[in-house]
Amino acid sequence: MGSTYGKALRVTTWGESHGPALGAVVDGCPAGLEIDEALIQHDLDRRRVGQSKVTSPRNERDRVQILSGVFEGFTTGAPISLITYNADAESSKYDSIRDLFRPGHADYTYTMKYGRRDHRGGGRSSARETWGRVAAGAIARLLLKTVGTDVYAFTTQIGDIKSETFDRAEIDCNLVRAADHDASERMIAAIDHIKEIKDSLGGIVEVRADGVPVGLGEPTADKLDALIGQAMLSIPATKGVEIGHGFAAVSMRGSEHNDAFYPVEHGGVRTGTNHAGGTLGGLSNGEQVLARVAIKPTSSIARNQDTVDIHGNAQTILVEGRHDPCVVPRAVPVVEAMMCLVLADLLLQNRMSRATWDS
Amino acid sequence: MGSTYGKALRVTTWGESHGPALGAVVDGCPAGLEIDEALIQHDLDRRRVGQSKVTSPRNERDRVQILSGVFEGFTTGAPISLITYNADAESSKYDSIRDLFRPGHADYTYTMKYGRRDHRGGGRSSARETWGRVAAGAIARLLLKTVGTDVYAFTTQIGDIKSETFDRAEIDCNLVRAADHDASERMIAAIDHIKEIKDSLGGIVEVRADGVPVGLGEPTADKLDALIGQAMLSIPATKGVEIGHGFAAVSMRGSEHNDAFYPVEHGGVRTGTNHAGGTLGGLSNGEQVLARVAIKPTSSIARNQDTVDIHGNAQTILVEGRHDPCVVPRAVPVVEAMMCLVLADLLLQNRMSRATWDS
Amino acid sequence: MGSTYGKALRVTTWGESHGPALGAVVDGCPAGLEIDEALIQHDLDRRRVGQSKVTSPRNERDRVQILSGVFEGFTTGAPISLITYNADAESSKYDSIRDLFRPGHADYTYTMKYGRRDHRGGGRSSARETWGRVAAGAIARLLLKTVGTDVYAFTTQIGDIKSETFDRAEIDCNLVRAADHDASERMIAAIDHIKEIKDSLGGIVEVRADGVPVGLGEPTADKLDALIGQAMLSIPATKGVEIGHGFAAVSMRGSEHNDAFYPVEHGGVRTGTNHAGGTLGGLSNGEQVLARVAIKPTSSIARNQDTVDIHGNAQTILVEGRHDPCVVPRAVPVVEAMMCLVLADLLLQNRMSRATWDS
Amino acid sequence: MGSTYGKALRVTTWGESHGPALGAVVDGCPAGLEIDEALIQHDLDRRRVGQSKVTSPRNERDRVQILSGVFEGFTTGAPISLITYNADAESSKYDSIRDLFRPGHADYTYTMKYGRRDHRGGGRSSARETWGRVAAGAIARLLLKTVGTDVYAFTTQIGDIKSETFDRAEIDCNLVRAADHDASERMIAAIDHIKEIKDSLGGIVEVRADGVPVGLGEPTADKLDALIGQAMLSIPATKGVEIGHGFAAVSMRGSEHNDAFYPVEHGGVRTGTNHAGGTLGGLSNGEQVLARVAIKPTSSIARNQDTVDIHGNAQTILVEGRHDPCVVPRAVPVVEAMMCLVLADLLLQNRMSRATWDS
Repeated sequence: MGSTYGKALRVTTWGESHGPALGAVVDGCPAGLEIDEALIQHDLDRRRVGQSKVTSPRNERDRVQILSGVFEGFTTGAPISLITYNADAESSKYDSIRDLFRPGHADYTYTMKYGRRDHRGGGRSSARETWGRVAAGAIARLLLKTVGTDVYAFTTQIGDIKSETFDRAEIDCNLVRAADHDASERMIAAIDHIKEIKDSLGGIVEVRADGVPVGLGEPTADKLDALIGQAMLSIPATKGVEIGHGFAAVSMRGSEHNDAFYPVEHGGVRTGTNHAGGTLGGLSNGEQVLARVAIKPTSSIARNQDTVDIHGNAQTILVEGRHDPCVVPRAVPVVEAMMCLVLADLLLQNRMSRATWDS
Repeated sequence: MGSTYGKALRVTTWGESHGPALGAVVDGCPAGLEIDEALIQHDLDRRRVGQSKVTSPRNERDRVQILSGVFEGFTTGAPISLITYNADAESSKYDSIRDLFRPGHADYTYTMKYGRRDHRGGGRSSARETWGRVAAGAIARLLLKTVGTDVYAFTTQIGDIKSETFDRAEIDCNLVRAADHDASERMIAAIDHIKEIKDSLGGIVEVRADGVPVGLGEPTADKLDALIGQAMLSIPATKGVEIGHGFAAVSMRGSEHNDAFYPVEHGGVRTGTNHAGGTLGGLSNGEQVLARVAIKPTSSIARNQDTVDIHGNAQTILVEGRHDPCVVPRAVPVVEAMMCLVLADLLLQNRMSRATWDS
Repeated sequence: MGSTYGKALRVTTWGESHGPALGAVVDGCPAGLEIDEALIQHDLDRRRVGQSKVTSPRNERDRVQILSGVFEGFTTGAPISLITYNADAESSKYDSIRDLFRPGHADYTYTMKYGRRDHRGGGRSSARETWGRVAAGAIARLLLKTVGTDVYAFTTQIGDIKSETFDRAEIDCNLVRAADHDASERMIAAIDHIKEIKDSLGGIVEVRADGVPVGLGEPTADKLDALIGQAMLSIPATKGVEIGHGFAAVSMRGSEHNDAFYPVEHGGVRTGTNHAGGTLGGLSNGEQVLARVAIKPTSSIARNQDTVDIHGNAQTILVEGRHDPCVVPRAVPVVEAMMCLVLADLLLQNRMSRATWDS
Repeated sequence: MGSTYGKALRVTTWGESHGPALGAVVDGCPAGLEIDEALIQHDLDRRRVGQSKVTSPRNERDRVQILSGVFEGFTTGAPISLITYNADAESSKYDSIRDLFRPGHADYTYTMKYGRRDHRGGGRSSARETWGRVAAGAIARLLLKTVGTDVYAFTTQIGDIKSETFDRAEIDCNLVRAADHDASERMIAAIDHIKEIKDSLGGIVEVRADGVPVGLGEPTADKLDALIGQAMLSIPATKGVEIGHGFAAVSMRGSEHNDAFYPVEHGGVRTGTNHAGGTLGGLSNGEQVLARVAIKPTSSIARNQDTVDIHGNAQTILVEGRHDPCVVPRAVPVVEAMMCLVLADLLLQNRMSRATWDS
């Protein structure tokens, strides 16, 4: 049922790529959370277009305004309305493809479902919709901070180029948001090349959450794994998600894959390995929650492609407009935001796990 | 929020591995659907344990009873209550591990979340919970049949052994439910071997849906992809899900991955290829919906493993009881059921897409 | 969307009047709540038919079985499945009205909505559906007890006869569950009389909750008042609900109706009066939550009535079967149960009101 | 869970009385509905303050902007974001009562629930929140028009003065929105008087829906009656709701209250009377849906009242600011809007009632 993420922390996004504005309403955020608008803007700036040569040249300031739910710097428990105005939309560029279905895009399916579509920049199916997710995710991140949870994501693969080392400090120091400096240079070169030949690349984003309290997840439908699955595969251009060793676990034996438990000094339990990626039985187990998201190569390419028009006639389409030759770097903050939303939602739900009121 | 799948077709499962009974309540099923109890039982028999040497020897008849919502063979629009009684539970086998956390299981996380757990056979976290999913999935399948949708799943990989050919008729002819007869024999041998050495294997299940109407999926949170992600990763032991080419799409270029559109004689639009796995912009596009699910090796292995008890002391555990050395074959009908639930739920939601009443 | 009450504590009822069984699944009940099956049965026995000359002679033992979610006497956090089997259903009595729409009943509307109906005893629309509400309400009551909340209801009016005094101890000492002994005798006589003349009476049930924590209710859609409204008007035969002075508040002036605040020794705030019925701005204010529910006279009367058959022909109907000449006394425990469900649901939701974890 | 009304047509409102803006997001509105912004504004203008001497002198233009979900005059199926900016908020007037709890207001309960509150004009608990409801209700009304449903409300009682006649054309011709011209004059005089003596009055709003399709309502939790109950009692200042004869039905006998069925020429079934107010078994029966809502006298009165401050000290409060001496006339369009939201939501849900696709 559509445009709302979460059950305890409920985020409803709205807005089209070329409409007057985009926004999100965050309902269910507890009162008393200190809101730092600059931190929200910081997250939004990371997903913004027009940042570098490897992303779309469209220039949107994406400035967030908080219209409700915050009073004197703290949340009040009322819904938080977040908005930004679209400034740099060039809708006329889309006139020529108004009646054509772009391959790899939602044009055809939206038209069939709704009987019409806003053709300008993909309308609702545009990745611009993720603005609201990142804005709301920043609030979720603030909520997670109150329990010491830290979420970050980075690019691990662009096309065939994989990261081989990990340095968190590197992530925001290169244009592709890889945690491996050398790999990042090869990735950037690959994107430069693919842009030149008017094609596009996909990749993989990895997201990690440290300091996740034990027990987040609601069996059975709303297991932590399940909600990560939903959240990640709701992001435009994603085609797969895996947790922990994921698809690689298929080739492991139980004796290898099981993470043995060990007692921790001063109380507590940890696992020696983390093949499971921080979840057991659908609940967080206190280890690092880790997921990877597969992102397809950008559908919009400046080449002639076979397609059909809305009248059912065969046509050739050349998609103009400003497009990322590889959306992976800009997907990093979105993946991060979705993980924040999942964890914050489950954090709130978890408060209802026990009948005793001190828990 | 827990135990309910779906928004239009809502399935709530209940029951523990060693409780008196298991069940599901299906709310939102439209009236007038002819219910064939034998077909529901057929699906349930496929997930049943005790079927062969490659699965657990536990013997449950798993007979379904319909307690409500069906009158004179047709659904009435009222909630459908499905129940089965547990017959062959040997709870005493679990006494020795009552205070121990089994590696790879939910014992530790459930205890931390809820302050207690039903230790008998995993309680709520047991794969026996999937009985209700398969029972409800069979009803969803009947609903999908009314629009010509056909869902089926099969094993494509066990450990390192992959299927190389596809013959749908083969699926229920071999113990591992592979669509490749030769591979199935190697898979069976691998399971026999792993059982002997008291270890376990994982694998991959592929699920396909033919004849899916165009337009199923609710942007943005409840995209078809997103709900497949949630549904599949809510199944016990799953660690990953991918749609269409999935993680392999990462290495493709946009010009390769995009599925070009072609007009169909007598109206309609098709794509020449189906790299997307039947979804565009989160909506079904009329092509085959295709997903693959990664399943980890069974956590219960009859070997000594390091663990911790509920008092925080280091211990060694030897998990007895009856366990599948590889759950992949039995996961096949569960994956199928979850895909049926996702599609039937979205089929109903899709009826609300247009303001005109004839749509 | 149908058969589920509540958002945090979610109760799904199922079952038909003349089906094999009735039940409820309670999802979201926190772990660690001690369940006393005898207390659940006690509440169920109060709504049972066959109790006295003023109610239907149908005899159902209504014995509850707990099929899941409780282990060694405490809730586990898993869904609690409650069931009872129908024993004394005489379906054949309904054969003669299979094709007729009973005035005041759901026969016509169910047939129009669903294209069919289970005509036996009203099927899903029967008041027997309330079995599951009362069973679940008993669990909600146990949850409320942990915070000192006490919910009770009683009959204040039958036909034109109103209670004039209040003695809580009297409620379960008379057949009509009035808190006024003298009035109860007149009410009983009135029911005896109406039964003789083959007619029926309505009445009013009042429900009170003492010890409700301040702040229960979720603005704006799920205010305490709003959820009381939904809960009460979902009970069969109800036609109105009011809170505090309710409709009588209409004739009061603001200066009269406003409940002034006073400080309480040792901290806290109380109101001197309680015209508001324990809610302010949709949240509980610590005073007694008080609501009244209007119940129409029983629709089933043993008189000839004009009606129409399913073919659209004018007909005369004589409703036989066993019916209460006045359902008000049996509605008392149902109203109580619904108030318990509302408050327990909001009690859990309220745990998410503040960002600080100690609240 | 707060700020969202409805399940198929989901309306989330946001905004505070003295925040920068107010709004609503309507998710689930089908595509292809023609949106007439002037009609939305028309409904909004009816709830606007500053309209006459009987309402608050605060002047807000309340101009609606549609920020998403509508393209070239028709809905697209995407969420519709509606916004208005607050122009004439005089927050400083509230400084003096920042630390005081106004009797009859949400100040105390919000503070206790959330640990803080936006004291300016009631913040989220202000009736200004209903702007979003009326804006969304106007869209629901457009949806209902496609099936011929017509919803209207009017004042039937102010204080002790009751309407005695009914003339729909009169409703918008007098300041109190009564359907009885003579009564309206007495009502206006009563409000003038109560204002002079610095007190306030309550009243009753009646709402009617003609042309409601048979079968709207989802048993059992979401019966039409139940959702009307929730919707109406979520409106600020409401204390009761009744359907059809409501509380008066209590004194009727079954033989009087039952609405007999009659066949209609050319097919169809009607009832001769409509004591039930258009619902049977929780579903609409094709007759006029009719409800009445009790509204308490305005809590804000310009008199000294006993209260307590946030430190727990006894205080005297004099509520200044601009307040309606009677909110009933302005509640009329809000009641209307809520009925539209309930019916439109159920209209969409009803599309899922039958398994056959032509229904």
